[in-house]
Amino acid sequence: MNAVTPEQITRSALASFAGAPDERTREVSQAIVKHLHAFVAEVDPSPEEWMGALEFLTRVGQKCTPARQEFILLSDVLGVSMLVDTLQQPGDDGVTESTVLGPFYVEEPPVAEQGANIARGEDGIPLWIDVQVTDNAGDPLPGAVVDIWEGGADGLYDVQRDLPDGEYDLRGRFRADGEGRVKCWAVVPVSYQVPADGPVGDLLAATGRHPWRPGHVHFKIAAEGFAPLVTHLFPSGDPYLESDAVFGVKPSLVIDLAEHGTGEAPEGRQMDRTWKSLSYTFALSRA
Amino acid sequence: MNAVTPEQITRSALASFAGAPDERTREVSQAIVKHLHAFVAEVDPSPEEWMGALEFLTRVGQKCTPARQEFILLSDVLGVSMLVDTLQQPGDDGVTESTVLGPFYVEEPPVAEQGANIARGEDGIPLWIDVQVTDNAGDPLPGAVVDIWEGGADGLYDVQRDLPDGEYDLRGRFRADGEGRVKCWAVVPVSYQVPADGPVGDLLAATGRHPWRPGHVHFKIAAEGFAPLVTHLFPSGDPYLESDAVFGVKPSLVIDLAEHGTGEAPEGRQMDRTWKSLSYTFALSRA
Repeated sequence: MNAVTPEQITRSALASFAGAPDERTREVSQAIVKHLHAFVAEVDPSPEEWMGALEFLTRVGQKCTPARQEFILLSDVLGVSMLVDTLQQPGDDGVTESTVLGPFYVEEPPVAEQGANIARGEDGIPLWIDVQVTDNAGDPLPGAVVDIWEGGADGLYDVQRDLPDGEYDLRGRFRADGEGRVKCWAVVPVSYQVPADGPVGDLLAATGRHPWRPGHVHFKIAAEGFAPLVTHLFPSGDPYLESDAVFGVKPSLVIDLAEHGTGEAPEGRQMDRTWKSLSYTFALSRA
Repeated sequence: MNAVTPEQITRSALASFAGAPDERTREVSQAIVKHLHAFVAEVDPSPEEWMGALEFLTRVGQKCTPARQEFILLSDVLGVSMLVDTLQQPGDDGVTESTVLGPFYVEEPPVAEQGANIARGEDGIPLWIDVQVTDNAGDPLPGAVVDIWEGGADGLYDVQRDLPDGEYDLRGRFRADGEGRVKCWAVVPVSYQVPADGPVGDLLAATGRHPWRPGHVHFKIAAEGFAPLVTHLFPSGDPYLESDAVFGVKPSLVIDLAEHGTGEAPEGRQMDRTWKSLSYTFALSRA
């Protein structure tokens, strides 16, 4: 009997995509077949295991709503989102490292003035953010557009809460001043769990992983003639810096916050509690 | 700047699964990371391409209903279902080759008598099926349970049509006689398209592939002390034998049908049109 071998099936599947009209489509679809078949040949799944995998992926797809993208979360916890991001990162000397955009970015965030407080409520430790945008030689980039967003003291982003339409919290778009600087009030970010009540949460539990991310503030920076930069800053000392569920931490993005006492604070705020401040320079790569 | 490399991200993602409590879970999850990261590192997707891939997978999951499993179809058209099946196939000499179960099998199909006609209607060319179940030395296996199912002359299976609950067409469970034989009337199968109105159909179209399968009859055979056999038989001459959309064809499963004229036919049928017959011996592997 001329038994068909696993290798022949892989060759047939590769050949079936050889006629793809677009070269990139052909390259990617054949790479999918090559790597997926290599995975299957290595683990040799039972039919029940393979069906379980397909049912898992089905549950991931069916968990998705306009407000919840479970496949991005799966990509995140497998380290693929960070890998895609890092492969795209320009390798120039002195350029700030990137990290993932995450699911909580809002296109066209509310425009905010220099020095504004983007926290609606009183919860959390006040944080003074003072950052500068430069090129990789350290020359400032006046007019750079800097989007800043973070979760609140409860670990939730505004889009995860029930705010009235068009209202935001801890989110703003700033324009850098003549020295490339942006300053504002926010809150000290806290560690929080990625959404763990779906199939990706089940995967983490089944593999003995936790769903925590260390606290961080997001930045998305655009300046004409430069590659956009999407990154986070992570306050040092967070217990999850070494085990971020989505692998977003890079040592160069971990910073010490300065601590301050009560009394006069920037923008004339009178503080009756202690507060912290963050200072960082983002260096962009020429496009 | 201590830039984090793509290789470090892959190592971190692998390490995150090292504590999985179950050894198989750890092995499989680390293999997923290894092969998925190798794929991503090879194709270096743009963020837009990767987001497109996640949106495609989301659409696949959201297309699934109790009657439509789009992820199985994706696995099928990538050749993975056949690969899983073939890797599991016992390699014994003389054992009939397997192929995929497909999405149209019904658990506990309707029990049918030897010689019965499992076609409800008059459409299609009548097909006399006469098969024997043996071990791989050719000794018959009396009492083997043989499930037979196929699509109709319109290319649709009963579960794709609107039949009353509990009613079936072209589907039956037979018990082999003292010689290990099963005989019944059905219809000559025709080539048909896999469901192409969803994201998997879009993938086939984008890569220049057609959605056709060559006509076939499904068999699922169980006999005590033997490994179950799931396979198809494909009548020769079908235009899609060389390009089955799901890679299910194996040369040993392609058979010539015998052609017959009008008049007396098996089971006392008086035929006023020509009909065909199929004969095959299924050899099972000892469990």
